[in-house]
Amino acid sequence: MTTTTMRAALLREFGAPLQVTEVAVAAPAAGEVLVRIAASGVCGSDLKAIDGKSPVVTHLPCVLGHESAGVVEAVGPGVASVKPGDHVVIAMNGPCGRCRNCVRGRVHLCSGKARMTAIMGLMADGSTRLSAGGEVVRPYIGIGSFAEKTVVNEAMCVKVGPDAPLDLLALTACGVVTGVGAVLNTARVEPGASVLVVGCGGVGLNVIQGAVLAGATTIIAADVNEAKLELAERFGATHTVLADDLPKQVGAIVRGGADYAFDVTGVPEVLTKAFAATQPGGTTVMVGSPAAGQDLQIPPGQLFGSRRLMGTQGGDANPARDLPLLADLYRRGRLDLAGLVSERVPLDQINEAVAHVRSGAVARSVVIFG
Amino acid sequence: MTTTTMRAALLREFGAPLQVTEVAVAAPAAGEVLVRIAASGVCGSDLKAIDGKSPVVTHLPCVLGHESAGVVEAVGPGVASVKPGDHVVIAMNGPCGRCRNCVRGRVHLCSGKARMTAIMGLMADGSTRLSAGGEVVRPYIGIGSFAEKTVVNEAMCVKVGPDAPLDLLALTACGVVTGVGAVLNTARVEPGASVLVVGCGGVGLNVIQGAVLAGATTIIAADVNEAKLELAERFGATHTVLADDLPKQVGAIVRGGADYAFDVTGVPEVLTKAFAATQPGGTTVMVGSPAAGQDLQIPPGQLFGSRRLMGTQGGDANPARDLPLLADLYRRGRLDLAGLVSERVPLDQINEAVAHVRSGAVARSVVIFG
Repeated sequence: MTTTTMRAALLREFGAPLQVTEVAVAAPAAGEVLVRIAASGVCGSDLKAIDGKSPVVTHLPCVLGHESAGVVEAVGPGVASVKPGDHVVIAMNGPCGRCRNCVRGRVHLCSGKARMTAIMGLMADGSTRLSAGGEVVRPYIGIGSFAEKTVVNEAMCVKVGPDAPLDLLALTACGVVTGVGAVLNTARVEPGASVLVVGCGGVGLNVIQGAVLAGATTIIAADVNEAKLELAERFGATHTVLADDLPKQVGAIVRGGADYAFDVTGVPEVLTKAFAATQPGGTTVMVGSPAAGQDLQIPPGQLFGSRRLMGTQGGDANPARDLPLLADLYRRGRLDLAGLVSERVPLDQINEAVAHVRSGAVARSVVIFG
Repeated sequence: MTTTTMRAALLREFGAPLQVTEVAVAAPAAGEVLVRIAASGVCGSDLKAIDGKSPVVTHLPCVLGHESAGVVEAVGPGVASVKPGDHVVIAMNGPCGRCRNCVRGRVHLCSGKARMTAIMGLMADGSTRLSAGGEVVRPYIGIGSFAEKTVVNEAMCVKVGPDAPLDLLALTACGVVTGVGAVLNTARVEPGASVLVVGCGGVGLNVIQGAVLAGATTIIAADVNEAKLELAERFGATHTVLADDLPKQVGAIVRGGADYAFDVTGVPEVLTKAFAATQPGGTTVMVGSPAAGQDLQIPPGQLFGSRRLMGTQGGDANPARDLPLLADLYRRGRLDLAGLVSERVPLDQINEAVAHVRSGAVARSVVIFG
């Protein structure tokens, strides 16, 4: 196989609109897979990259997009786990299986070389398979799914079976696994627990359905937008509150506070309040990554009450375990993916989709490839 | 049995020296136990109470002391788990076994009535068994062990067998179980882990020996006092650092940072540095309770790397499980208690012992009753 061309949305300048243009794709090298993208969700981190606020987007042009699924088109030498025609979700993390974190079962913290280069938009050999007019193009975190095709590491291709729609499974790669994983992997919510979810956007809704899956019996959704609270109820919230004084509002529902709180707003002051709304022994998870610059403020007296504060990277997922599980839960009707999709757009309308996500008007905008 | 008298050190005025005087002890009521104290360690929280900085010492006079062991002298109606002559360690927490936290196995967060009143220095019926000149005397957190005798709830009496010295077992009630419990119960350190311990006083040394018990293979002790670092090595530290730039110093020993950090200084800025000295996925435990007023500052970018921050209350102990375990580890030579004791003093010298603890000159000063 030789180099082919495809259409992709390029970020050529921070803050400028993405440019849909022709990009050349080289054949997959050893351990790499060429995937024809079926769908790619538009996520907040893509916007952060457009705004020049992503620490890993250091070189332009870059193809953004990282929440995707597709069909394997070709594989490089040595690839054994997928073959052309397989349906795959492209995981944000392709663990090496050999580094200290991987062998300890913490594959979400893989520090293998291929993962480290992928984060910076490079293949393990330090190059990329994409170019435009002779210029090197980097795929965002080794994915770059605002494009008809991409070449990714084999470990990032997770086979999911042909019987579920790829435009929905695409969402499991980031928003769904981040929200559900924060509940199941990070906090390990147990049956009967009370859970507070602050921020009911695309990820927050998945925290809510993760809490349902975990058997939580009190699920309090908080947001400042009433329309989002309605959506939260559809995803399983048992109580909704228009966020104002969270510790007081939560205390009125669960005496002493919630067992678990998930902050999905990325606003440090909100996280501080969510933390204060947990009971002694409670766990607060910061889902997502607030902008740098402002520290989280935690009163030591509250922490002393055996409270816990946890970060999570994409739901601390083990992709080979979690992505097929999410596909299976979808098939069994226990995971709502269709309800997350507010709009489907062709690649040509990517900038409109970005604007919609920026305005907070949609839960998830999904780019569909024809 | 009627009221007897005994000698006890009374706090009559915040900031003033303790007064050793005669105190009347009423017979134990139902579910209560009269214990003849053998030994009581002097701990930082006693000093905080003397200084009027303890939120639970609201009424004076009060008998301080809470790290103790002794011999059961009499039991009230219905007491079945101990009998006169039994050697007991007096736990800081007597779990009810019936509240929501107890039935979930989180007995360290027991919210039963007897525990809630004990924290405020009262028995379950709202009274106390101690008086001086007709005045009600409260035992600090339901213990008050700077005294020849005390009456405590049955659930706070943990039988430990007659074959280990009570002056050493006394230390397990607070300093030892807090340090070891922070490692085994709160952080759940696993074999092969790297552990940073900042602050190598009476509790920090027990974090170190907890890390040894857990199988940690890299144990970095940090302090600003070189003499304490020598003691830290005796308790099992594999590396010592004079604390300066913790992330850099720890990174030079363990690439990327430690798996676990324990801040035993109670200084918010130090905790922030200890947190920054952990690797992605690392866990930081705040051991002890910093003074209120100053928030902990946590950079969200560091938390995002799946790092965790945990508080602990006295090592999140289950006394009936943990105190006999600690006694057993001592008997088997796997827990050093003798090395923690810097001085033994009679009750008459309690104020000197307090001064020594305040100056940081001793790891543990223990009051011995004749």
